[in-house]
Amino acid sequence: MRPITIAVDAMGGDNAPDVVVRGAVMATKANPVHVVLVGDREKIEKILRKQDYSPEAISIVHTTQEIGMEESPRKAIEEKPDASIVIAARMVSEKKADALVSAGSTGSVVLSAAKTIRRIPGVRRTAIATVYPTMNELKREDHLALMVDVGANVVCNAEELVQFAIMGGAYVSDIRGIPEPRVALLNIGEEASKGGEKMQEAYKLLQQSPHLNFIGNIEGKDILRGIADVVVTEGFVGNIVIKTLEGAAQTIRHLGRIAFKARIAWKLGLIMLRKGLAMLKEVTDYSEYGGAPLLGFEKIVIIAHGRSNAKAIANAIKLAGKCVRDDVCGQIAKNIEEFESEPTREYDRLTQEF
Amino acid sequence: MRPITIAVDAMGGDNAPDVVVRGAVMATKANPVHVVLVGDREKIEKILRKQDYSPEAISIVHTTQEIGMEESPRKAIEEKPDASIVIAARMVSEKKADALVSAGSTGSVVLSAAKTIRRIPGVRRTAIATVYPTMNELKREDHLALMVDVGANVVCNAEELVQFAIMGGAYVSDIRGIPEPRVALLNIGEEASKGGEKMQEAYKLLQQSPHLNFIGNIEGKDILRGIADVVVTEGFVGNIVIKTLEGAAQTIRHLGRIAFKARIAWKLGLIMLRKGLAMLKEVTDYSEYGGAPLLGFEKIVIIAHGRSNAKAIANAIKLAGKCVRDDVCGQIAKNIEEFESEPTREYDRLTQEF
Repeated sequence: MRPITIAVDAMGGDNAPDVVVRGAVMATKANPVHVVLVGDREKIEKILRKQDYSPEAISIVHTTQEIGMEESPRKAIEEKPDASIVIAARMVSEKKADALVSAGSTGSVVLSAAKTIRRIPGVRRTAIATVYPTMNELKREDHLALMVDVGANVVCNAEELVQFAIMGGAYVSDIRGIPEPRVALLNIGEEASKGGEKMQEAYKLLQQSPHLNFIGNIEGKDILRGIADVVVTEGFVGNIVIKTLEGAAQTIRHLGRIAFKARIAWKLGLIMLRKGLAMLKEVTDYSEYGGAPLLGFEKIVIIAHGRSNAKAIANAIKLAGKCVRDDVCGQIAKNIEEFESEPTREYDRLTQEF
Repeated sequence: MRPITIAVDAMGGDNAPDVVVRGAVMATKANPVHVVLVGDREKIEKILRKQDYSPEAISIVHTTQEIGMEESPRKAIEEKPDASIVIAARMVSEKKADALVSAGSTGSVVLSAAKTIRRIPGVRRTAIATVYPTMNELKREDHLALMVDVGANVVCNAEELVQFAIMGGAYVSDIRGIPEPRVALLNIGEEASKGGEKMQEAYKLLQQSPHLNFIGNIEGKDILRGIADVVVTEGFVGNIVIKTLEGAAQTIRHLGRIAFKARIAWKLGLIMLRKGLAMLKEVTDYSEYGGAPLLGFEKIVIIAHGRSNAKAIANAIKLAGKCVRDDVCGQIAKNIEEFESEPTREYDRLTQEF
């Protein structure tokens, strides 16, 4: 049996291929995975030569094209059939690799995956999940929560929201080792009646799902508290919320820098506050937790941050390896099937017909 | 001619009637307005007796009921016909007052207004606007922006979004003295094609509106930058974004307090950083800018924050007075009428028919 193999888009990200290659070396040293670096062989080998790495743990698949962070994903994927992210995704769909990791633009990763990798049976829409830091009011071992979807679905219906909860729940349960992750619906009030028809319907379905630990609605002000392990929302809202938090974090750091320049007296203050502010900084810093999973595909896809350093890439590869080993996709498939075949749901549907 | 008269809900807010009455005294001293305090006469007079105020500038309308911050607004308004906010709103609709100010719960103010005060002709939906502080990248005289809607409309269509832009633009233009306020649409990307059909349509309509200075889409990360004077969004999204920012501000302050307790060395740092962090604090502090206007009614309605102090109430009353003096509602009516009767819009509609 071949070892767990991760296809890594060597050309994706702001500092590719340098940090990606070095991240792969770090990951293969510390974890029992094989990494296929997909990209420009010459450039990759040049970086590898400077590293102390085990050649049996890393191989290269040469590609001639790459997709930049600023390119239109749709156009680039059509015009660049040999782009590293496209070839890496195809390797996964052809079972030559077990998971995909890329620090390329979200759009190019999502579209490359969607073009080649099958959805899990029963999954209506794939979703982008994002891990973010919280105040950890639940006193978990880590202080993270998962928000899903953050941009793959502008609009979606109540049942799709429930599927996001199921997929996110299975992922968090495995990766963070929480048996019954707390799932919340992001809404404009706590009451079940809030947010209009679709949210009311989603609330009802979430509450009825026997395999979900649904804690109800949470509001925007509760997102950072960490009272839920999985926060479910439409992609339009999730995208704006995550970017709003990124903007807030940038604002705080910007204010800090202005202060730093302005008065030497601030210096001590800033150094002291650094630890506390590190939490907000993490909102835009995926290096600690590996990256954002794409949920709903038959194989694991991890999107690392475009600004990833080598350590962040190594963490993303490690995360992908763990997902494969624990068969997260299999667990998602099982839970989705249970939800879709739930007798009460079919009964509900048929009572509307008869 | 009677002076500009503001109906103030004396019983609304966390610290009513005390701060409300004191705020009214402050406001009438500094501004040429008459305030009608609507609420429990005995309680109001008890507070007034301790103040140095001009009796001709303040009158009292006695009511026997009040609506608490935690009550269900719908239920409370049905069951309490003599509630201070209901009577204050009715005074405005009956032209006994020119504007309404309340620090009561948003729901109770919105529903009381909607029950009695007429909409401006042509306005499809009223909206709640919120003023928030920004990094002021535009280098305006103040560092504020307006987001509309933040909760009165869960879902709305493209034309309603344009009306929010028009109403918000007229308000900002008058209150902040900006002749052509920059209007942006909150979306998941900058391109006109982003966000699905409704947002594409809203983008097109905003771009076509000759009386709007539309700068395009902005993303979540741009909200605090202050590159737009008016940020337009559906109530569901706006509500979650504003509350997310409130949550982020609370988190920062919480981290600060933990640090403050933990080590004396932090103290200096915190004092130094206070000025910078004050900006984020303001997100939850309406005292500087008076309150959130309800837009679309024939009369001005200002919702002051529930935690308002006397100064915040005074600022809300001052703001209401300025809106009346400058006829903000008349300006909104004029701009809405222009938008609704725009020949190109009618042409567009009819070309779909013929």
